[in-house]
Amino acid sequence: MTTTTRVVGQSLTRIDAPGKVTGSAIYAADFALPGMLCGKVFRSAEPHARLVKLDTSKALRIPGVRAVITAADAADVRYGAAVKDEPVFASDIVRYRGQPVAAVAATTLGAAEAALAAIEAVYEPLPPVFDLASALAPGAPLVHEGWQSYVAVPILQRDGNVCNRARIVVGDVERGWAEADRIFEHRFTTAMVHQGYTEPRAAVASWDSSGQVTVWSNTQLPFDVQSTLAEILAIAPSKIRVIVPGVGGGFGGKLRVGVEHFAALLAKKSGRPVKIMTTGEEELTAAYPRQGTLIELKTGVTRDGRLTARQGRIYFDTGAFAGSGPGVASVATMVLAGPYRTPNLFLEGYAVYTNKTNCGSYRAPSGPQANFAVESQMDVIADALGIDPLELRLRNIVREGDEGPTGQVLTAVGLEECLLRAAEAIGWKDRRPAPGRGKGIACGWWTTTGGSSGVYVKINPDGTVALNTGAVEIGTGALTGAAQVLAEELGVDLTDINVVSADTFSTPFDFGAQGSRTAFAVGNACRAAAADLRRALFAQAALLLGVSEDALALRDKHVVGPEGRVSLAELARQSQMAGGGMIAHGTFIAPGTAYDTKRVEGHAYPAFHSPSFHAHAVDLSVDEETGEVTIHKYVVAQDVGFALNPTYIEGQIEGGVAQGLGQTLSEEIVYREGRVLNANLTDYKMPTALDVPRVESIIVEHPGLIGPYGAKGVGEPPNVEPPATVANAIAAAIGVRVTSLPITAEKIVMALRERAR
Amino acid sequence: MTTTTRVVGQSLTRIDAPGKVTGSAIYAADFALPGMLCGKVFRSAEPHARLVKLDTSKALRIPGVRAVITAADAADVRYGAAVKDEPVFASDIVRYRGQPVAAVAATTLGAAEAALAAIEAVYEPLPPVFDLASALAPGAPLVHEGWQSYVAVPILQRDGNVCNRARIVVGDVERGWAEADRIFEHRFTTAMVHQGYTEPRAAVASWDSSGQVTVWSNTQLPFDVQSTLAEILAIAPSKIRVIVPGVGGGFGGKLRVGVEHFAALLAKKSGRPVKIMTTGEEELTAAYPRQGTLIELKTGVTRDGRLTARQGRIYFDTGAFAGSGPGVASVATMVLAGPYRTPNLFLEGYAVYTNKTNCGSYRAPSGPQANFAVESQMDVIADALGIDPLELRLRNIVREGDEGPTGQVLTAVGLEECLLRAAEAIGWKDRRPAPGRGKGIACGWWTTTGGSSGVYVKINPDGTVALNTGAVEIGTGALTGAAQVLAEELGVDLTDINVVSADTFSTPFDFGAQGSRTAFAVGNACRAAAADLRRALFAQAALLLGVSEDALALRDKHVVGPEGRVSLAELARQSQMAGGGMIAHGTFIAPGTAYDTKRVEGHAYPAFHSPSFHAHAVDLSVDEETGEVTIHKYVVAQDVGFALNPTYIEGQIEGGVAQGLGQTLSEEIVYREGRVLNANLTDYKMPTALDVPRVESIIVEHPGLIGPYGAKGVGEPPNVEPPATVANAIAAAIGVRVTSLPITAEKIVMALRERAR
Repeated sequence: MTTTTRVVGQSLTRIDAPGKVTGSAIYAADFALPGMLCGKVFRSAEPHARLVKLDTSKALRIPGVRAVITAADAADVRYGAAVKDEPVFASDIVRYRGQPVAAVAATTLGAAEAALAAIEAVYEPLPPVFDLASALAPGAPLVHEGWQSYVAVPILQRDGNVCNRARIVVGDVERGWAEADRIFEHRFTTAMVHQGYTEPRAAVASWDSSGQVTVWSNTQLPFDVQSTLAEILAIAPSKIRVIVPGVGGGFGGKLRVGVEHFAALLAKKSGRPVKIMTTGEEELTAAYPRQGTLIELKTGVTRDGRLTARQGRIYFDTGAFAGSGPGVASVATMVLAGPYRTPNLFLEGYAVYTNKTNCGSYRAPSGPQANFAVESQMDVIADALGIDPLELRLRNIVREGDEGPTGQVLTAVGLEECLLRAAEAIGWKDRRPAPGRGKGIACGWWTTTGGSSGVYVKINPDGTVALNTGAVEIGTGALTGAAQVLAEELGVDLTDINVVSADTFSTPFDFGAQGSRTAFAVGNACRAAAADLRRALFAQAALLLGVSEDALALRDKHVVGPEGRVSLAELARQSQMAGGGMIAHGTFIAPGTAYDTKRVEGHAYPAFHSPSFHAHAVDLSVDEETGEVTIHKYVVAQDVGFALNPTYIEGQIEGGVAQGLGQTLSEEIVYREGRVLNANLTDYKMPTALDVPRVESIIVEHPGLIGPYGAKGVGEPPNVEPPATVANAIAAAIGVRVTSLPITAEKIVMALRERAR
Repeated sequence: MTTTTRVVGQSLTRIDAPGKVTGSAIYAADFALPGMLCGKVFRSAEPHARLVKLDTSKALRIPGVRAVITAADAADVRYGAAVKDEPVFASDIVRYRGQPVAAVAATTLGAAEAALAAIEAVYEPLPPVFDLASALAPGAPLVHEGWQSYVAVPILQRDGNVCNRARIVVGDVERGWAEADRIFEHRFTTAMVHQGYTEPRAAVASWDSSGQVTVWSNTQLPFDVQSTLAEILAIAPSKIRVIVPGVGGGFGGKLRVGVEHFAALLAKKSGRPVKIMTTGEEELTAAYPRQGTLIELKTGVTRDGRLTARQGRIYFDTGAFAGSGPGVASVATMVLAGPYRTPNLFLEGYAVYTNKTNCGSYRAPSGPQANFAVESQMDVIADALGIDPLELRLRNIVREGDEGPTGQVLTAVGLEECLLRAAEAIGWKDRRPAPGRGKGIACGWWTTTGGSSGVYVKINPDGTVALNTGAVEIGTGALTGAAQVLAEELGVDLTDINVVSADTFSTPFDFGAQGSRTAFAVGNACRAAAADLRRALFAQAALLLGVSEDALALRDKHVVGPEGRVSLAELARQSQMAGGGMIAHGTFIAPGTAYDTKRVEGHAYPAFHSPSFHAHAVDLSVDEETGEVTIHKYVVAQDVGFALNPTYIEGQIEGGVAQGLGQTLSEEIVYREGRVLNANLTDYKMPTALDVPRVESIIVEHPGLIGPYGAKGVGEPPNVEPPATVANAIAAAIGVRVTSLPITAEKIVMALRERAR
């Protein structure tokens, strides 16, 4: 084991930087094959209706059109991770405006668009449910009449439009209410928002004569796309090669099959490679955005600010299909618990079907919504009890050795340090420095997703190292982090590592780029492979140097003995000459986290593995006339365990805050009667570079026991706290609290007028 | 160890068959990238000259031309495996007609060809050497004036135009002559011939902004092309990714960098992907054909046909650069020894520079030429001594436990069985069944080339298996053979194996598709990986089934215990869920073959590893008027050790015989004054389907100790014996012996007239 690190912990240039900076990197959207056709998807114009007629004959006659496919061309299957409820194409009932009904492939985009226009669909409307209230109302129309017949993960608690109810029950909230001096109850709502990745979803599919299809996709989860395509195409996964050339941002929005299945079906029908790339309108009407939510939160406290009980319900408007909703509802309950000691908990997460686009995962799924409620309410409680909000948090936060809400034992808890350093950096002592100006703070915790990772590693005869991983670089720098671990463990430089990634045929399985896990899990798999390689290198070097293996060390690209040394390049060359080369494999899975199974129900994420802790603080001004919010300073203190690459962690923090501020202040997919009103980037308001403040990142390191060098997941957490942090600062600045995201200027002005009345 | 085989030994359908049969397989020549330019090479019009002027300015002005490169654009390096004597482009001296002098890239083929025509080169002729006699004459002009300054493999014996002299000396030939009753001396010549692969050499190169170049090539040796390109481009090998999409035949002609370096240099200069594909004319004037040879052979025998001594010299006309000549000259001495017990040997192989295209390797390099001499002379001796040729061979052949010429101990020697079965199948007892009709027999031995192979293997959760190998499927079916080994060892079907091959970044090192080694070496690497996987599968299954690992066996895609069983799919799924997946790596290198180092000099192949033994026999008629040869039946009996896939071994035998008959009867690259006279497939006469007789394959199995299941190399041997077999049959048929290849109708008629005089 290295005691002083040389590569990890350094802010080295990302391995994917040159291509991305110069524009030469190939993304799935750039990928092209000779003879490739252009595919387009024909989508439902109705939110809930019976499809009574579908005539594609005119489309087929348009010059250049090579294939038109409908449900008749696809296997009669429903797919889905938690609930198998989604057909490839709607054939009978359409369930949201934008649902795929048919697809076309043509030699030009123009011909494909003309074909879409020539498809005739006739609908017979059905009673829709457009929001949580109507979906949950007694006797509400069902989005899926036959929901009981769908195959689903057994643990789910389903009923009608509820496709899962996850629950955590700890102690007895009634006793908690009795012990409380004050009880606070609030309702919060949050909007549906899009991940805003730069590159739209894109895929190219091409079949060969052996019945194998290769799909080049910008998915975050090539192995998941492979198995989903196997269901949809009704062929063995081993006949499906998914390759990810590059991903222009994912943020959870590219976890599920997007256009890959349509490309594959069109390619099969036409006998030609087919590429599909979504438009901006499709992204905002028929992708996998973050669920809007309704949150009811009731918390009991003693006079001195000790939490006695919490009851919470978070309802996710998950749209027409379950998607990741059932799991997200589970995670949400962990966030609702807060990073606090609360003896009595009754927390529920509901994933609810509505006739909207099927929502999915977005960087820390459920995190910003649930944390917005928890941390807004903490400030309300603090104000009501006359306790400083920072102080209230410090009295309640979890600490080393505490239990989490489901009974897991918490270690490497850097939360107090995060809170104190964020508060100090923002100048917490002066919370209201001027009229209309205020500071806010919020904190939280988040999981490092488990899942397994395998790698192949070989040392080349020039001393460089090839790393084969099934993981995907989605733009976070996580594979640079993993490569740093490998370089460190082998005593080489980061620039010596060549990464080959994300090919279901040539790389080992990886659970994929999700849940802040890539550098963590792939890094650990690299450690395992490096350990094997060290053994092989030392065995060979011991013979050459005439010393025992115990006397050897890896340093500066050499195996070093007491008197002589031999380079890795030479050892690899000799090994290649004399026995197949210096190759190894390594695997990793996060060990299970023990928790109390009796505390959970319908729960997909009953423990937070290697959790990270973080605190955000902001200093902002509100123009009381216009409602405009100006952020002066934003601070993030995040316990990353160990910073594998500080610069890229700062990048993740800055990016997470930028996205978080968009969700906090301006972003919302606006539906009216099942139709998106702002399906373009003019009306859907993402922050621009000018809208994002400078973010100060404070990296806190309480090394975990499992991650490489103690590292914890980094990518998602910065997205969790911005809504609450900003809401708290606005309340501090102008004395009104907005409980609905986004906190638009309009809502602020309305709230001020309300108070004035 | 499996006792009854289920997959190996079966004539299963090749894994690459569907793509090749339907035409959907992508070869390097098919490979295309968006924006790709067309590259062409400007070649010397002189065989030996000083290049006094090279003006490319007009070419650059042609519309569509994006790059013109000359020696000034390439690093000032000379490359080569044994002797570093070849520049990328000629800059001062040109050494053969066809040598690259410049290259162009343009948006169309037409523009590229126009650019070639617009390049002006002025030469000042130098005295050339066009054949072996003039190259070896005292005071001959030197093809390389500065040969002493070239870096070369130390063992080579170089002098002037001789770039290697390899030698085997055993006993004392003078004593051998003294013990002999008769001494026979002959000279033989053989022609320069082309490998005749269907797909011309082709490569596409594309650089990215990190300074990495990816080359899609139809090379047989991606790792060798990688390291050669590293020398030529003066960048690290790790910056060069060589991928082989598919190879339309190689036969040794695609062992060395062909057009890859030009494509890479043009792509760099133009900033665009560049593809180069050679024309038929380039193939026949500037590729790596088989060397023409001159062979002097002197053999002493006792009256009863026992060989007492042999002295042999084989001169290879290797062309303007050493290429594989030095090694081929070494191998030749092993073939000259014959598969015979000869106590005294003095054998030499010379590789000689001339001003012709640089010759290379062709299926069993040196084998057909040297065996033609050895086995022709054996028949002459037999006739002279009045001993049946089969009987003469049986009295002299090596047998189990004998020493080879350099002292290696021979095991698994199936030669007697091959001779007897070939003789029986051809009806040897009746050697001259009709006037003008005769039968011939010849035998030989050949090596299974060593070199190391590594593989990565993973079991997928659907029970299929991914095999990553750096080896190339060049059309022999060798990777099917290796996959059969893997399937056998893992208890799955061949159709369960997916092969990913030949990518210097994502696959482990492999010595490449050469020397009949692929199924042998990759198969053994697969055995190593499978052994690891079995351990992991058994360990996991033992826990699940509650039994000890000793009680388990692999059968029918399951690990089977005394009472229960669990599928590989389930074990892989669990392992993926619980620990990175069922992955393994395996390596193999053939162990060294002990030989007497004192017997060899300048020798690159001092022992034949896991040698194969074979006998060919033919029944043919000769039309004495026209000289036309009609083959009635051709028989091959080949000791393959163990037949991994009988059908594909038959395919190799049939293909090797077809190529062998072309070299025997019609093929010759005809040079006059350094210019190829027949640089097209009309005048260069390869056999067509109608010219090839039905071949009867007799598979003999004397299992070797090293190869998987005892397999030996299979691909090259069938190319060794056809010339001698046919020459012997012609002599039997019409009583004249032609000692010069090809044995054209014209030569037969001339020989008959000569005899008549």
